[in-house]
Amino acid sequence: MKEIRKNIAQMPGYVPGEQPQSGRFIKLNTNECPYLPSEKIAAACLETIRKGLNRYPDPMANSFRKAAAEVLDVPPEFIMAGNGSDDILTILTRTFVGENETLRLPYPSYVLYKSLAQIQGARSEEIPFTDDWHLSPAFKTPSSDLKLVYLPNPNSPSGTRLSRAEILELADALPCPLVVDEAYADFSDENCVSLVLEHKNIIVTRTFSKSYGLAGLRFGFVIAHPDYIQQFVKVKDSYNCDALSIAAATAAISDRQWFNETVEKIIKTRNWMRPALAELGFNTVESHANFIWCTRKDWDLKNIYQKLKEQNIFVRFMVYDKWKDGGCGLRISVGTDEEIRILLERIKAILN
Amino acid sequence: MKEIRKNIAQMPGYVPGEQPQSGRFIKLNTNECPYLPSEKIAAACLETIRKGLNRYPDPMANSFRKAAAEVLDVPPEFIMAGNGSDDILTILTRTFVGENETLRLPYPSYVLYKSLAQIQGARSEEIPFTDDWHLSPAFKTPSSDLKLVYLPNPNSPSGTRLSRAEILELADALPCPLVVDEAYADFSDENCVSLVLEHKNIIVTRTFSKSYGLAGLRFGFVIAHPDYIQQFVKVKDSYNCDALSIAAATAAISDRQWFNETVEKIIKTRNWMRPALAELGFNTVESHANFIWCTRKDWDLKNIYQKLKEQNIFVRFMVYDKWKDGGCGLRISVGTDEEIRILLERIKAILN
Repeated sequence: MKEIRKNIAQMPGYVPGEQPQSGRFIKLNTNECPYLPSEKIAAACLETIRKGLNRYPDPMANSFRKAAAEVLDVPPEFIMAGNGSDDILTILTRTFVGENETLRLPYPSYVLYKSLAQIQGARSEEIPFTDDWHLSPAFKTPSSDLKLVYLPNPNSPSGTRLSRAEILELADALPCPLVVDEAYADFSDENCVSLVLEHKNIIVTRTFSKSYGLAGLRFGFVIAHPDYIQQFVKVKDSYNCDALSIAAATAAISDRQWFNETVEKIIKTRNWMRPALAELGFNTVESHANFIWCTRKDWDLKNIYQKLKEQNIFVRFMVYDKWKDGGCGLRISVGTDEEIRILLERIKAILN
Repeated sequence: MKEIRKNIAQMPGYVPGEQPQSGRFIKLNTNECPYLPSEKIAAACLETIRKGLNRYPDPMANSFRKAAAEVLDVPPEFIMAGNGSDDILTILTRTFVGENETLRLPYPSYVLYKSLAQIQGARSEEIPFTDDWHLSPAFKTPSSDLKLVYLPNPNSPSGTRLSRAEILELADALPCPLVVDEAYADFSDENCVSLVLEHKNIIVTRTFSKSYGLAGLRFGFVIAHPDYIQQFVKVKDSYNCDALSIAAATAAISDRQWFNETVEKIIKTRNWMRPALAELGFNTVESHANFIWCTRKDWDLKNIYQKLKEQNIFVRFMVYDKWKDGGCGLRISVGTDEEIRILLERIKAILN
């Protein structure tokens, strides 16, 4: 179609994980939280409905900014909310990267970054991790048309993370902003939020889809220097967050008890899940996120994925064809203890 | 800041109407519905919360597509939902218009179109309406780098509309897709939805912010040929609509009684509001939307706007500096009968 921009017409489009909308299933394919979110959310939504959805929401979601600022110990001016962290990543890409300019990302990592570059008509430069999931020197090398670098930390699909020291060293070496995508940082013992205050070119993104159990709500945010926030505000849709999600996210981030208990439960399950998968013969790597990356050469992983799916158990089969050993793996989200027990039994049956 | 794309750094940014978040006021500045939305929405939201916001929503909002398809008498494949019609307009711009390419819009009209071109690094070509709010021949003239044309119909700030025949003639003359932004079409006696089925290059956008009383929800949609929809899906964020807004919008569009009664009330108020404003000395033009565009040369309109604001009555003061007589005007949304009676009294007092 000649009307469509070439970069759009030629791109395949990002394919999100399967989202079955009805039936009973165990869903371990998109790193959702297996627990229902804070019970304070229903009341916050009802109160918002009572006040009247006929009015536009606060364009800057200030009630949320204030609550998040307290929890994260940064000034509210450093925070901007988005319609999921995908909205935030879209805004960042559009702010920093023009057509034919370059966006850098590690490989294998979150496939969306490349799609965002394609939509923008920009070039994406995928630089492989080292074998032990660290950054190669090429990742830190400046280049003249490099406009933005994405680094998910912890990374997906590996669940591995780089230390704050490594990230600071990277930011110092780069000629452009470094976006540390902390979608999974709540499951890690370290994060980069405070680095944003010290280093203008470090930008941190967060989501409510994982550690807050609110994937259905679409809410995320960015932590960045206010000079950058002012530019992002120009690029975002005026009312990018709706009144219900602002109220719900504000209630959720303020409920520290729910958050602490839930994250603790997920880490506890993760801690016994990894050795159990290893015992079944999978190669795994230490995860700082809410999923485990599983590889093995002695079985067809796609076959395991399909047989599980036939039993209404969804895990994510991924292929990174430029990665070692063909790059196949299963990324398995941390579910409830019960869900993981069933998963392990079923895998055992498939392997026997 | 050298890190920011030049087109972004240099643009002023779209400034939405004031959204006071607390206090008692009469709000007639952003064309919201003065009535609370359908009562079915609370139940739909609660049911969605009960099912679990921890799961991602349906990426294509199929329940909504099906409901909207029935109401509008088009196949569901012609429909894609968005996070407000702003999200839809952003997606359309990014699909069709690259850097340095041209986007055409009438003047005066919705200022956002120009901002979308600026964010994209594209050129915007503003072509003035004729004095009686029709299209000048220049608007229909093809040019080689013209990639997209926006036409709000009914138009804002004027409330005027072009006939289906005029729009069809325009679409035939243009070398690129024509987006008919029907944000206000529910208040008009004609719309272009069925033209989309006949003419591939006509694309219609709709919003729930005006006639469905759901500005706080952020929900809109586009009606376009499925070949185009497939491309828009690549450009949109995977989960651009959250589970609550999908459920609420589906409930709202299915409640035809609420919709018909509400639109009827608004039109009734509009019909007595215009002559009442004319009696106070304003020049007005027939409105097919939920607002009236008021101009006059004998008074400082900014002064009227400010004096009303001091009394917690918000109307929109607009300046289109390339338009006749300096392009100043007050765009006043249709409120409840009571709100409009108070407004008229206060204006009368200001004028005396």
